[in-house]
Amino acid sequence: MVMSLNITIRLQLANQPGTLAGVLEVIAREGGNLGAIDLVSASANYLVRELMVSVNNRAGLIGVVEALDRLPGVQVLHVIDRVFQRHLGGKMEIRAKREILSREDLSLIYTPGVARVSTAIAGDAEKAYRLTMKGNTVAVITDGSAVLGLGNVGPEAALPVMEGKAVLFKKFAGIDAIPLCVNVHEPEKIIDFVLACSPTFGAINLEDIAAPGCFEIEKQLTSRLDIPVFHDDQHGTAIVTLAGLINSLKVVGKQLESVKIVISGAGAAGVAITKILMDAGAQDIIVCDRRGTISRDNLPQEASKRWLAEHTNRSLQKSSLKEAVSSADVFIGVSSANLLNRADIMRMASNPIVFALANPDPEVEPEEVHDLCGVIATGRSDYPNQINNALAFPGVFRGALDCHARMINDNMCLAAAQALAGIVKPDQMSAEYIIPSIFNEDVCPAVARAVENAARITDVSRKYLYEEGEGNLLF
Amino acid sequence: MVMSLNITIRLQLANQPGTLAGVLEVIAREGGNLGAIDLVSASANYLVRELMVSVNNRAGLIGVVEALDRLPGVQVLHVIDRVFQRHLGGKMEIRAKREILSREDLSLIYTPGVARVSTAIAGDAEKAYRLTMKGNTVAVITDGSAVLGLGNVGPEAALPVMEGKAVLFKKFAGIDAIPLCVNVHEPEKIIDFVLACSPTFGAINLEDIAAPGCFEIEKQLTSRLDIPVFHDDQHGTAIVTLAGLINSLKVVGKQLESVKIVISGAGAAGVAITKILMDAGAQDIIVCDRRGTISRDNLPQEASKRWLAEHTNRSLQKSSLKEAVSSADVFIGVSSANLLNRADIMRMASNPIVFALANPDPEVEPEEVHDLCGVIATGRSDYPNQINNALAFPGVFRGALDCHARMINDNMCLAAAQALAGIVKPDQMSAEYIIPSIFNEDVCPAVARAVENAARITDVSRKYLYEEGEGNLLF
Repeated sequence: MVMSLNITIRLQLANQPGTLAGVLEVIAREGGNLGAIDLVSASANYLVRELMVSVNNRAGLIGVVEALDRLPGVQVLHVIDRVFQRHLGGKMEIRAKREILSREDLSLIYTPGVARVSTAIAGDAEKAYRLTMKGNTVAVITDGSAVLGLGNVGPEAALPVMEGKAVLFKKFAGIDAIPLCVNVHEPEKIIDFVLACSPTFGAINLEDIAAPGCFEIEKQLTSRLDIPVFHDDQHGTAIVTLAGLINSLKVVGKQLESVKIVISGAGAAGVAITKILMDAGAQDIIVCDRRGTISRDNLPQEASKRWLAEHTNRSLQKSSLKEAVSSADVFIGVSSANLLNRADIMRMASNPIVFALANPDPEVEPEEVHDLCGVIATGRSDYPNQINNALAFPGVFRGALDCHARMINDNMCLAAAQALAGIVKPDQMSAEYIIPSIFNEDVCPAVARAVENAARITDVSRKYLYEEGEGNLLF
Repeated sequence: MVMSLNITIRLQLANQPGTLAGVLEVIAREGGNLGAIDLVSASANYLVRELMVSVNNRAGLIGVVEALDRLPGVQVLHVIDRVFQRHLGGKMEIRAKREILSREDLSLIYTPGVARVSTAIAGDAEKAYRLTMKGNTVAVITDGSAVLGLGNVGPEAALPVMEGKAVLFKKFAGIDAIPLCVNVHEPEKIIDFVLACSPTFGAINLEDIAAPGCFEIEKQLTSRLDIPVFHDDQHGTAIVTLAGLINSLKVVGKQLESVKIVISGAGAAGVAITKILMDAGAQDIIVCDRRGTISRDNLPQEASKRWLAEHTNRSLQKSSLKEAVSSADVFIGVSSANLLNRADIMRMASNPIVFALANPDPEVEPEEVHDLCGVIATGRSDYPNQINNALAFPGVFRGALDCHARMINDNMCLAAAQALAGIVKPDQMSAEYIIPSIFNEDVCPAVARAVENAARITDVSRKYLYEEGEGNLLF
């Protein structure tokens, strides 16, 4: 994959005709793509301009800058990498909800007034939902062991990703999310950590924690805590995948109950996708890991893979992934780049659905198989049909927090997927539009209401502690 | 102590002359204090008004409301407790530092751009100071075991206090502080928790953790972490107390080196005050706990009290607190209400300095001894000379974060106290003005610069990783 660099170049240009034209010529010649041009300041002799340029890589950047510096009348003042610029000082901050201007304000929000609020909560801990940040706050917890496609980069390096996630929580769901990157990695220690800090939070988002540890961590925490625990790499991915598949099947005119589905990848996402598809009615699923199909003939050691062996692959097929996809209606890849090629897709059933979700490079290049597929989806924003967790987690947590849910159960995940699929109306649906854009403002509220409703039906919501609306506020 | 209730009463009043006058008369008769009156809406028949009223207690509130409801032409629509109103939904939130409006914004702050930032930090963890929230973020950690004067109320009930603290961090120092209320209480477990989450934070504020556990927790964490760990109940109180004492001694014309100081309370604050006073030059200190003077003749079991026994009370005085204060120049109380009376203060040396800091009710009522004292200070905002931690912790953390300090050492605390004392200029100083107001905007910057300077001198600051100012930002 080409990962381009977005840079801003600040130049001092001699204030005479033709200087800028020379600059643009050099940038084009060196392979840079020009974006906006700003004028920063002007004098009789010089103009200072900022140019937004994207280049393919660091070598391209050096080529552009050096060529500009050689131009007569041009001086490169500085070069800013826009990604790093956006990260300077971090991406999020704490704000007081209301201004503090006076001693009276202080006496209401801190001592002595706050003592009465503490006393009220000491008498009934559930009042913390209403009288503190708890009711709208999610901890985003990682040990940095499986960050993006980068692997085990550790907690500090995971922090910018968790901050980004927190910013998405606020942007899409109005939720206050707090990154907590921990430097413990044994499941037991991560469990202890989350149990310890749980009083502060209304819900826990586990993020980028490697399989198989993530399964045990989530299972233990879900049973031991009375707030939702949601491992987004599992269930967020599973919800959006199911939503996309529901609509894809409509596009190609097939039924979930009867299609043959092959999943590549038996990690966090692969296991969760398998489970949600089965919950939704899928019956014929084969999961492959690096060694090929997983089958109960040859039980794996890891508990999560053993579960897959016992519950999938009803025909006990033993083969490589490439053979397994023969005659399959659906391929879902949550594994790694370039595992399949055009010939493999040609051997799938008619109008195959291909979800090649490995990031940044998909299991099969969409360009290579575009004409063969009924529907193609990827994890990337530069193709149609992006399977993006940000379509699910904001609404899932919004719904769970709104009803003070004790957990996020399978019904809530299924409801989220169905609501998400339902955003795309039948008359809009097509092979290139099976899932809404993350900027679609209907997404979060629709998912949230479905999740909240499922929580109430399955009796994991708490009753509201107080009536809503205006009324007496005496505690 | 009288803890008054601040309430807002919304009334519907018949729109005819004399109705409001009747209301005000009833409030005064029932003992309510009237504040602002707002007009909410008006029609031909009715006016809706909101009245800010304070009453002494719940009985007074009920008296006012019932009397109002009996008035002809008056209907009480609702009654709001302003403390609880200010706590609804919590007091703080997360904000993105810059708006996210487009797919390009997302690609810069989240995938794929963020992967390059993660990679940079994975190569050099110290870059997290500049490229993430870490550099400006403090964890405020408590187990809820010693909250305000309330005692062991647990983590949920501690949360509104920690949120209040976080709001003060932002208000006074621009620091992003995150409350983490934990439901583990053994020192070992609290230590493990803080070690685990430390990669996320630039510094740790321990808060409202009971003695003696707090001493071991702070000691272990300080030696095992390379970020500052500061137990505010100890050192914040100690810094502000020393600052107040420095100026008080100037007011009464005595020297720290030669005065006799009696401290009541051998908990977190008492121990830390003793240490900082000794660091500052005090030589004659006697500390009392509930059983009277602490002395090396009779070594206590607790390590922190044993330290006091070994380092204070050079005359090995064995007595009650009341006897100990005889002939003392300075009394500092960080214990509990009403331990001393007028007769006790009369037996102190001439022009005694009395810091009766127990909250909410001081060790001796200021009104009772006002005429006997050279200087009186309390922990309360309704008397002059409030010894308030909020004078110290914002600047201490600001200074420590600004130089990426590895710890907050004794020199930094001493420097903070001296800087804080120095805010009150000699020509302003008086028995009623020994310490600045917390709304004095000079306080935080002065303390921060002193702390940062002391950090550099004692070699616990880190070098800046990059030059400041504009320049190339390529990583």
